[in-house]
Amino acid sequence: MGSDETQRLLLSETRDHSHVNEKSDLLQRRRTRRGGTSDTEIEQNGDLQTPLHPQSIYETQEAELNFKPVLFYLAAYLGTGTLCFFLASYQIQGIKTYGFLDALYFCVVTMTTVGYGDLVPNSTIAKLLACLYVFTGMALGGLILSKAADYIVEKQEVYLVKAICKAEKLGLEEVSKELVTKKSKYKFLLSISTFVVLMITGTVFLYFVEKLDFVDAFYCVCSTVTTLGYGDKSFSTPIGRTFAVFWILSSTICLAQCFAYLTDFYTEDRQRSLAKMVLTRKFSPRDLEAADLDGDKAVSAAEFVLYKLKEMGKINQEDVIAVMEIFRKLDYDQSGTLTEADFRNSQV
Amino acid sequence: MGSDETQRLLLSETRDHSHVNEKSDLLQRRRTRRGGTSDTEIEQNGDLQTPLHPQSIYETQEAELNFKPVLFYLAAYLGTGTLCFFLASYQIQGIKTYGFLDALYFCVVTMTTVGYGDLVPNSTIAKLLACLYVFTGMALGGLILSKAADYIVEKQEVYLVKAICKAEKLGLEEVSKELVTKKSKYKFLLSISTFVVLMITGTVFLYFVEKLDFVDAFYCVCSTVTTLGYGDKSFSTPIGRTFAVFWILSSTICLAQCFAYLTDFYTEDRQRSLAKMVLTRKFSPRDLEAADLDGDKAVSAAEFVLYKLKEMGKINQEDVIAVMEIFRKLDYDQSGTLTEADFRNSQV
Repeated sequence: MGSDETQRLLLSETRDHSHVNEKSDLLQRRRTRRGGTSDTEIEQNGDLQTPLHPQSIYETQEAELNFKPVLFYLAAYLGTGTLCFFLASYQIQGIKTYGFLDALYFCVVTMTTVGYGDLVPNSTIAKLLACLYVFTGMALGGLILSKAADYIVEKQEVYLVKAICKAEKLGLEEVSKELVTKKSKYKFLLSISTFVVLMITGTVFLYFVEKLDFVDAFYCVCSTVTTLGYGDKSFSTPIGRTFAVFWILSSTICLAQCFAYLTDFYTEDRQRSLAKMVLTRKFSPRDLEAADLDGDKAVSAAEFVLYKLKEMGKINQEDVIAVMEIFRKLDYDQSGTLTEADFRNSQV
Repeated sequence: MGSDETQRLLLSETRDHSHVNEKSDLLQRRRTRRGGTSDTEIEQNGDLQTPLHPQSIYETQEAELNFKPVLFYLAAYLGTGTLCFFLASYQIQGIKTYGFLDALYFCVVTMTTVGYGDLVPNSTIAKLLACLYVFTGMALGGLILSKAADYIVEKQEVYLVKAICKAEKLGLEEVSKELVTKKSKYKFLLSISTFVVLMITGTVFLYFVEKLDFVDAFYCVCSTVTTLGYGDKSFSTPIGRTFAVFWILSSTICLAQCFAYLTDFYTEDRQRSLAKMVLTRKFSPRDLEAADLDGDKAVSAAEFVLYKLKEMGKINQEDVIAVMEIFRKLDYDQSGTLTEADFRNSQV
């Protein structure tokens, strides 16, 4: 069998498999999403003609599933908090506007850890409630909201692909490929652009509505988005606090995502360099010997792929050890290969 | 060749390789650390007799390399900031003690985004400086300090292994294995214990030194470690601010690491479940057909490992495609395997 045929088999393995084995349902669905490009995926991205990166689609679908509950959790969390602090509003001191709005604003300022201090709890109960609220808020922000933000960025990416296609007059496939290999870079660029827009919006708002001078407006924006929140400048009008509820939530999460994507980008870049180094390194007769697992003086496609992926650090020893244990059990006749004979013998 | 021999070859592949190919130095070092357990690693962990998880050792070594520069960056960053804000101390208003200490305290409160607001900049220059300082501080904290914290946790783990060995009278190998498979869990437990100790230390300190009542001390601790920093309660004495410089830095980083390890733990747990599902799933004759890449009606060890790792989602299509391209180029005679003949022919 020629190497072309082997390659075809190797690449389509996952898809073939999803046809022949329809029993393990969950497993199969996972595999299809991760491995190949199923028909459903093509349909869902029908407006793009070409399907996006399967891994990306998998992540998007997973994020989509998680998006609605996230909104629900956020609403429940903010709702409960607002109600509690509204009922305890006489135990909160500071610059006040309307009871309910202040409670909501206090919740957002607390959960994002901005903590201006323009409203502070002044009873034991309110203080302990605020402590509880900020810890749960951190968990919600770190573990759940970041996923929702990621989902939005993934969605934006689809529009970005379309925009680039139009502007650069490139084929869709080219742009998609570029997007796949430099995924984190584009995510970072998207989030940083959104962040800049949010910064500008905040500064303009504080300048015109809260009547701060330009430097103070910018200073307050920086102090808020980083969750520093000195509190010497903050939102003190009813309209300002209404705006703040949405703006603080989105801008603080956006900045956190920027940093997360920057880290991803850095990691991905390093991995890509390593992979490139491994792939461009000359394959010598010595490598041939080392990669030849079954000692038949020939390196099969599977052996080669395994050898190179190990070199890239994508596979580690623990994984291989665990799989090899299973292999040994299945290899009934100890021949070093699994054949139909192994199945027949094991069932005797 | 029996499957035992194949397994021996498969598992020792990386080590063998580091003996035969001594040219590509950097690559080799990477490979040795990731793949096998070299002699140097055993020596370095000599006091434990058994080497720890190679991956962990690799990470520890890398972290160790990064640890000294991190301390240097932190010192340089805090030093520059302290000097700037000390020189501009007349542009900072609030509760003051000693000029230099206040500047350092202000730097720490700003870079960790606690932002009590007990000291705030009150000139344009000082405000813009604070904005710059908090952004760079976030980057330093997120991208660099977390690595240093991880290094410390890795070090602690070694002591934990020893402690468990003594207490539970278990063999070192057993404990190490447990530690490897549930790495994130132990990291999380270690960081959360450290965090609790830091919380108690802070509360006790505020109670005795800053003379806050118990609830206020606890409230101030919660407000600080979460970087909320309302600022109604903060450190106002010279001794308090000296303590705060170290305590705020360590406790905020520690809490952030707790959340990071919790996320890792969750991810690792999900991956482990998936791997277990893939490994325990019955391998049917249909799988045999799908895993048989070269169509010889027999699944070799390499084919089996590749098939299972793909199923686990540890390898994706892009990786395989990239490696297969190289394979095709090397397979000069298009036989579907690499042999010495391919090398001879390619050099003619």
